[in-house]
Amino acid sequence: MKRIAVLTSGGDAPGMNNAVRAVVRKATSEGMEVFGINRGYAGMVEGDIFPMDAKSVSNILSHGGTFLKSARYPEFAQLEGQLAGIEQLKKHGIEGVVVIGGDGSYHGAMRLTEHGFPAIGIPGTIDNDIVGTDYTIGFDTAVRTATEAIDKIRDTSFSHGRTFVVEVMGRNAGDIALWAGIATGADLIIIPEEPFDMEAVVANVKEGYEVKKKDHFIIVVAEGVMSGEEFAAKMREAGDTSDLRVTNLGHIQRGGSPSPRDRVLASWMGAHAVELLKAGRGGLAVGVKNEELIESPILGTAEEGALFSLTEEGKIVVNNPHKARLDFAKLNRSLAR
Amino acid sequence: MKRIAVLTSGGDAPGMNNAVRAVVRKATSEGMEVFGINRGYAGMVEGDIFPMDAKSVSNILSHGGTFLKSARYPEFAQLEGQLAGIEQLKKHGIEGVVVIGGDGSYHGAMRLTEHGFPAIGIPGTIDNDIVGTDYTIGFDTAVRTATEAIDKIRDTSFSHGRTFVVEVMGRNAGDIALWAGIATGADLIIIPEEPFDMEAVVANVKEGYEVKKKDHFIIVVAEGVMSGEEFAAKMREAGDTSDLRVTNLGHIQRGGSPSPRDRVLASWMGAHAVELLKAGRGGLAVGVKNEELIESPILGTAEEGALFSLTEEGKIVVNNPHKARLDFAKLNRSLAR
Amino acid sequence: MKRIAVLTSGGDAPGMNNAVRAVVRKATSEGMEVFGINRGYAGMVEGDIFPMDAKSVSNILSHGGTFLKSARYPEFAQLEGQLAGIEQLKKHGIEGVVVIGGDGSYHGAMRLTEHGFPAIGIPGTIDNDIVGTDYTIGFDTAVRTATEAIDKIRDTSFSHGRTFVVEVMGRNAGDIALWAGIATGADLIIIPEEPFDMEAVVANVKEGYEVKKKDHFIIVVAEGVMSGEEFAAKMREAGDTSDLRVTNLGHIQRGGSPSPRDRVLASWMGAHAVELLKAGRGGLAVGVKNEELIESPILGTAEEGALFSLTEEGKIVVNNPHKARLDFAKLNRSLAR
Amino acid sequence: MKRIAVLTSGGDAPGMNNAVRAVVRKATSEGMEVFGINRGYAGMVEGDIFPMDAKSVSNILSHGGTFLKSARYPEFAQLEGQLAGIEQLKKHGIEGVVVIGGDGSYHGAMRLTEHGFPAIGIPGTIDNDIVGTDYTIGFDTAVRTATEAIDKIRDTSFSHGRTFVVEVMGRNAGDIALWAGIATGADLIIIPEEPFDMEAVVANVKEGYEVKKKDHFIIVVAEGVMSGEEFAAKMREAGDTSDLRVTNLGHIQRGGSPSPRDRVLASWMGAHAVELLKAGRGGLAVGVKNEELIESPILGTAEEGALFSLTEEGKIVVNNPHKARLDFAKLNRSLAR
Repeated sequence: MKRIAVLTSGGDAPGMNNAVRAVVRKATSEGMEVFGINRGYAGMVEGDIFPMDAKSVSNILSHGGTFLKSARYPEFAQLEGQLAGIEQLKKHGIEGVVVIGGDGSYHGAMRLTEHGFPAIGIPGTIDNDIVGTDYTIGFDTAVRTATEAIDKIRDTSFSHGRTFVVEVMGRNAGDIALWAGIATGADLIIIPEEPFDMEAVVANVKEGYEVKKKDHFIIVVAEGVMSGEEFAAKMREAGDTSDLRVTNLGHIQRGGSPSPRDRVLASWMGAHAVELLKAGRGGLAVGVKNEELIESPILGTAEEGALFSLTEEGKIVVNNPHKARLDFAKLNRSLAR
Repeated sequence: MKRIAVLTSGGDAPGMNNAVRAVVRKATSEGMEVFGINRGYAGMVEGDIFPMDAKSVSNILSHGGTFLKSARYPEFAQLEGQLAGIEQLKKHGIEGVVVIGGDGSYHGAMRLTEHGFPAIGIPGTIDNDIVGTDYTIGFDTAVRTATEAIDKIRDTSFSHGRTFVVEVMGRNAGDIALWAGIATGADLIIIPEEPFDMEAVVANVKEGYEVKKKDHFIIVVAEGVMSGEEFAAKMREAGDTSDLRVTNLGHIQRGGSPSPRDRVLASWMGAHAVELLKAGRGGLAVGVKNEELIESPILGTAEEGALFSLTEEGKIVVNNPHKARLDFAKLNRSLAR
Repeated sequence: MKRIAVLTSGGDAPGMNNAVRAVVRKATSEGMEVFGINRGYAGMVEGDIFPMDAKSVSNILSHGGTFLKSARYPEFAQLEGQLAGIEQLKKHGIEGVVVIGGDGSYHGAMRLTEHGFPAIGIPGTIDNDIVGTDYTIGFDTAVRTATEAIDKIRDTSFSHGRTFVVEVMGRNAGDIALWAGIATGADLIIIPEEPFDMEAVVANVKEGYEVKKKDHFIIVVAEGVMSGEEFAAKMREAGDTSDLRVTNLGHIQRGGSPSPRDRVLASWMGAHAVELLKAGRGGLAVGVKNEELIESPILGTAEEGALFSLTEEGKIVVNNPHKARLDFAKLNRSLAR
Repeated sequence: MKRIAVLTSGGDAPGMNNAVRAVVRKATSEGMEVFGINRGYAGMVEGDIFPMDAKSVSNILSHGGTFLKSARYPEFAQLEGQLAGIEQLKKHGIEGVVVIGGDGSYHGAMRLTEHGFPAIGIPGTIDNDIVGTDYTIGFDTAVRTATEAIDKIRDTSFSHGRTFVVEVMGRNAGDIALWAGIATGADLIIIPEEPFDMEAVVANVKEGYEVKKKDHFIIVVAEGVMSGEEFAAKMREAGDTSDLRVTNLGHIQRGGSPSPRDRVLASWMGAHAVELLKAGRGGLAVGVKNEELIESPILGTAEEGALFSLTEEGKIVVNNPHKARLDFAKLNRSLAR
């Protein structure tokens, strides 16, 4: 393979720039030519494609977001969109593609591969909800941002003796909530992967203040459960009388200078994606498992469950077979006072 | 004066701990005894009062919040509450009090002084809305937190070509919005001290994307104007069609390790408050004006406008005569692209 | 086991407080009593021992260092020291001990176990140089601190077209250098686990500026190789003529609020150490391998190499069989421009 | 004036990018054309000059260093160098120049003005040692970096009961040492503007540990006094027997994302410099005094003392009449335990 392209797709995540840099640098050092595609599949279809060299990725290591920009582009799920994209790849002589993004982006990568343009997926999303990898790029940074934010909220929670419901991101996954919750000593962590009992929550808060003489109470709620506002409303309905406040950490969790771990992971995965393309392989997603890089079928494996399925109307459904670390949920319960 | 007390009142602010430390250390070095009062006026009335020494304020310099805790306690606006508090001060032999807090807290300090217990106010609030000082303790840290958050939001705003409405704190003042907005190059800053035209806002966004080819747009809205959600809803009503998102930075702005500037300011003010009490003075608020410490009548001055007035029913109204730097609002307009 | 103690020993590391908290909370929740020992083995021998409960470890999650303090105490390598320590353990009815520290601390833990006081080791050091675990507590934070520092140095390096030699910690291990070097895109990473050729270094710098038109050059040197000053002196001797500066990051790498990853790892390991003691086990070190907790003989295993050996004079030698990730060293070379 | 240029000179400082952005944006909004000059006066003489527009300064607000790069260029002190620079300005039709840098850079600005090319100076240096302004751009960020670093060192200092000598930057000025020292509660702050007695320092440390039962001791030394290593060596000579360590914070103090205060100050000064040039004025330095912008003769004023003088051999000497806040030095002494 002589010429490859790289794009970022789906929600931006800190570390995407490091992955792009690694793809460009590694490909260049292997004697390949590299093109950048702006705004994901949208840019591919529109021909927003430009040549890159080793220097074009200098000084982006510490920047959040993606300098290639990203976009959601559902049209690429349809054959027509795919063919329009391939037209552009042909025009630029591009033979293979690295797709950095979430599971939605992987579907497009599989279709490109099937059309004869091997594509490799790199898991870039803060949600850590992609199968085939222990960690996604951006997750560690999002946990850091959430942790620093909850540390700050704890200052006010402690100073005023308040209960705080903190909503964190994660789509359908509770990973950000679990890690940031343990890191900040959250009194309760509510995740979509575990049932919870609102009566018990309210009783827990009440016992905390009245019996255990706690001076504050922090509940971390993953967005996949419900919004923080909803959760607090239900607490009040269930009889909570504490001085209750809600904070939704919101979009700050998506940005920021990537953590060293995300930078290293992204660099490592980016370089490996090039090695796979160089070997003529496609339809694979790069992942990290047990501290080593692996590659696996981009649409999921039998034991993990398929990443996608089709509805009767032909719509793509992301199955999200990701499993949360319920041992971490248990750990936090054993450490709460 | 041989024995003084210190309390924090109203919303917590980063730097309050540094002010407490300075009061304790300075008083000790001047041969005075110092008592801490927990939870502001509430703790005073309940007698939650304890002796402190130089060592009791070690290792708190870098912590947000207030380790003396704070509370709102409207009962102290009434004579009955004041007398109950004084009873406790007498019991502990306390002759003067340093009150660290917002303008609500200043009213209590004035009443104590009138009852023969000289009290000195130190402006502790992130809102920077207290007369008699250029800066309040906590403001610089809140601006830093808001700036870092908006820097992160910019990553996603840029990567996705989105318009972000970011709501920041400040009660009735636009100071946090102005400083954080200039620092992050906000395209628009909306503050309560200036009128704005929603049609112009929407036109500005439209022109930004279509004429100036901007790839993102950030609007910082001070909470004193309206909530970010409301603002975005009005934008949509007025015809905005951009990819619009809202983030309310929320309570993270109240916490966090105090900035060096807040630490220095708090240390400086705390030491000065002790000097004033030592000289037998009360009913004064410490402030910084033109890089030097000053003291001024705690209820406001004629030229600045009285800080409080009474309704016919005898309720206290905070007049909030603070003036925003409208030259900064203008500066930002001249720098926006 | 009814009553256990916890201590921190050797160089302090961010996350130690989280491990102490987990030990105390988990033990309490299991119905055990917990004592804290100040200043490591020194405090044990001196009887600086005090009871702890769930509340005594509140609000320490985000603090660097160790609130139990630490100390080096070579006397504990001798039988006499060990017996003096055991005397104190008996006095307080302590039956088992959790030792949080580096490999030097593990030796004492083994001796306690042999004397009938089961002890469990938790790897707490920024150097990541302990066998039996993929990561030590404090490593992730130290990498973050080094990365943030090198990001800052890069600003000046870029602005002035300078070559910077940055010395990072790690004792005999190159792990901090490798991770921080990849994260910051260091042009060269020099670690003790790999030989290097000074002529090649100087040629690399020269080629960078003259052929590749680089505008700056950053070399990360692990302290295990030599000091940054020495390295720069040797570069100059070998003919380097670039505008060369040296920064030794120094002790900032040992402190700071622990990263979420270190907090989670420390919490997890601390809870597990209590489970092991509860089961009556000792002479083990907790570690994380392939994303799961493990325990292994505290003095090292056959396949990894023994952690300690004795000289003819009876002195303890730490063998340091830790292996660096040479694949990471190679990765960085493939990404440098 | 229709066409102006902007350059950064001397040591880089966080906030320089914000000043450049403000110059470009303000000039553009006033209908002027703007050119950037790379690498300060060196780039001017070499003709490394390029047109800029509002968009060329997008997305640099949060970046440390100077994207225009900087360089020291003593040749510009000579007439020959100045004429070569002017030749280039003429070639590009440039009529006025904004010079962002330290006092060395101001001399060149004065010479340009005398040659008929009005130049305005903006004080950009972390050292805060320029007359005509209360604060220089970069100072607040450097204080933040030093404060965060000393906070980290305090963790180890506390955990191990050690004495730390921390060397901070500031050239001949003690401002960084004073602010960071107060912010971190340094036990002693040693600055060039005040004499100190080494015997007293050692006695102070001894009394701290033995009489006051302090568990650690931090001494902040400004580089203008001597190096940290030298200071520690002299302490040992004078009889210090504490567990003494030295850290030189080094170049990290020069980099990093600018603080909000530096960003606002730089934006404000940059816009004002353009207003001055627009009014045809030159030979002035912009400054902030008492919270308002001012301009003053770039070579210093009578009351402050001239910024430069000439030796008999015609060499330029920077007089550095900056005065430290000795009241802050006194404040810190009153707060130390």
